[in-house]
Amino acid sequence: MSEYFEHDRDGNSVGLVEKKFHTFAAAPDELLLESGARLGPITVAYETMGALNADKSNVVLVTHALSGDSHVAGYYTGNDPKPGWWDIMVGPGKGIDTDRYFVICSNVLGGCMGTTGPASLNPATGRPYGLDFPVVTIGDMVKVQKSLLDHLGIKKLLAVIGGSIGGMQVIEWAINYPDMVASAIMLATTTRHSALAIAFNEIGRQAIMSDPNFSKGDYYGGPKPDLGLALARMVGHVTYLSDDAMRSKFGRRLQDRESLSFDFDANFQVESYLRYQGSKFVQRFDANTFLYVTKAADYFDVRHHHGHGSQVEAFAGVKAKALVISFTSDWLYPTYQSRNMVKAMKKNGLDVSFCEIEAKCGHDAFLLPNERLSTLVNRFLKRVYEEENDAL
Amino acid sequence: MSEYFEHDRDGNSVGLVEKKFHTFAAAPDELLLESGARLGPITVAYETMGALNADKSNVVLVTHALSGDSHVAGYYTGNDPKPGWWDIMVGPGKGIDTDRYFVICSNVLGGCMGTTGPASLNPATGRPYGLDFPVVTIGDMVKVQKSLLDHLGIKKLLAVIGGSIGGMQVIEWAINYPDMVASAIMLATTTRHSALAIAFNEIGRQAIMSDPNFSKGDYYGGPKPDLGLALARMVGHVTYLSDDAMRSKFGRRLQDRESLSFDFDANFQVESYLRYQGSKFVQRFDANTFLYVTKAADYFDVRHHHGHGSQVEAFAGVKAKALVISFTSDWLYPTYQSRNMVKAMKKNGLDVSFCEIEAKCGHDAFLLPNERLSTLVNRFLKRVYEEENDAL
Repeated sequence: MSEYFEHDRDGNSVGLVEKKFHTFAAAPDELLLESGARLGPITVAYETMGALNADKSNVVLVTHALSGDSHVAGYYTGNDPKPGWWDIMVGPGKGIDTDRYFVICSNVLGGCMGTTGPASLNPATGRPYGLDFPVVTIGDMVKVQKSLLDHLGIKKLLAVIGGSIGGMQVIEWAINYPDMVASAIMLATTTRHSALAIAFNEIGRQAIMSDPNFSKGDYYGGPKPDLGLALARMVGHVTYLSDDAMRSKFGRRLQDRESLSFDFDANFQVESYLRYQGSKFVQRFDANTFLYVTKAADYFDVRHHHGHGSQVEAFAGVKAKALVISFTSDWLYPTYQSRNMVKAMKKNGLDVSFCEIEAKCGHDAFLLPNERLSTLVNRFLKRVYEEENDAL
Repeated sequence: MSEYFEHDRDGNSVGLVEKKFHTFAAAPDELLLESGARLGPITVAYETMGALNADKSNVVLVTHALSGDSHVAGYYTGNDPKPGWWDIMVGPGKGIDTDRYFVICSNVLGGCMGTTGPASLNPATGRPYGLDFPVVTIGDMVKVQKSLLDHLGIKKLLAVIGGSIGGMQVIEWAINYPDMVASAIMLATTTRHSALAIAFNEIGRQAIMSDPNFSKGDYYGGPKPDLGLALARMVGHVTYLSDDAMRSKFGRRLQDRESLSFDFDANFQVESYLRYQGSKFVQRFDANTFLYVTKAADYFDVRHHHGHGSQVEAFAGVKAKALVISFTSDWLYPTYQSRNMVKAMKKNGLDVSFCEIEAKCGHDAFLLPNERLSTLVNRFLKRVYEEENDAL
């Protein structure tokens, strides 16, 4: 989610990648959603890195969070100012080593980066869906990813890995397709949102829906609810950081001035930073997608959807080896939530490793360079790959 | 700040109180503000409870936080549905015992409950100030309170007590008028805002200023920036609560429904609660006051304004006995900030007591019924009163 760190264009990038598209549900009512609604046609935008081996046993599916997309690593052209959103993790010799693994990442259902979402054309009207787009769930997103893998002829995943809302998709994968998922890596995530997390999402949604340009979601072709979306992004950014991270990053330093200005300009650096993040985000993101993806995350609840109220029961059918990682300063999905998930997995006798990484940077930690995180992921993948291939 | 708890109309209220007004700066340029601007006329709205004793040695000044006002306890009429905002603390036999002390509370400068603020008439134009109102500081607010006390002939305060932004006023009192303040009680407060606290305030301000009805602050007589102010209030409410408090209060309980609705209505109770708090707030509060009071809080920094960068130096001239109280789950002004303040006071040899109260309810804890809090305040006041009167 964070974009304030800059990547170096180093020799360890996967290099150039290409965004591809697959349309798998061609009829308007082809995909049955968890809500009972039907949706089609559905196109999914995806990217791949590394080489698929002969027995297709080296596939790593990366799932992205709220503001991510299929562009996980590498560059589209030689002139891109920045690589994909997780270039620090995905590449030759990195945590997810593209010299060894075939990495796939697709934009989520409801997204705005190539996969069908609220900005896509509604076949019933010939105009963008807007709020006529059905409310989708994390399970629906995973179903779309499964169809992509079917299309690619991939029957087994060495690993599914993702952080935050991407981590929810990992959990859903492990539960819904137990025979297909050899391992699951959940970073900075939770099996259900706390009231606090729902509250912040709801404030973001209200900011968007209160914007007069929102026009009940039917703003395509006209002025967009940029002010509302910028506010939503500002709220999000504060939740991704931590008190500590903000203190060391900004403290009370003033922005381009020696003393207080006694007006309502941005006096403090943290104010400028938030305004900048908000205004930058609206250039690349669709406000309706913000509504749909946050709603899917708020609805996500493995106890409720898979366990008749019990988290232990929810994980009963899972076979994947799991690596769960939380970060000390993440107050959006605090460590206790990861610990509870790990407990529920262990009660089912699962092979699960858990690590709480000391990190100052809050929820965003999984997106930032972290030697420990990369090493843990790298070693876990190696172990699982060896065990899986011994087992074959 | 919180209003979701209901007070019982019990026998321990101070009963009926009257809001009074005092105009002390009658000329347009009479009050010199910290910014260098001059302001007048200035009217201050205040209320008193209890009886002033003969030697005027029993005066307790209560300072209020962002959304408070002079109506600290009791009722205006026999029909008020609710008493003043701190009725749990102020009354016969309570933490601040009105059988013993004469309590004064006034609306802050820049407020919207009777004291001169951005909604007041600008003598230069004959219209409400709006953003022509000068940016005021916590020090300016205290200066106005001092003028009120001069008017009432009060030369000594047994105690100044307040929480949150009210606590900042207490700190300012102790520093600016050391010979007048016998004791200072700071609850859930800080000597300066962290970047995190500034960030949340800035989001609230941006929400207000982004509202098309804001009209650069000149909205009096027209539609008001209610949507922006409601959003600002929603953000505030989340910061006043804690993860724990929200979990026990709301969890993931649904609002008036059995199952998810798969739309963007308020599905969860926490969503309804926030929407309700937002819409209720706009009925009684002025958006411009939100801007001015949060800005004053963000600017507040005792190191910078009183200590040449040193907190220890800032407290060097203080003579008041101090009671500092923080709450375990307050993540807006976490305990470490209170501890730092206490350290700086102790380095100056001050008589300071510190207590971190175990409380689940976050920053709002100082406004909620808490036996420990009431007892601590009550005993501290008794001790100071006895010591002061022995000393006479």
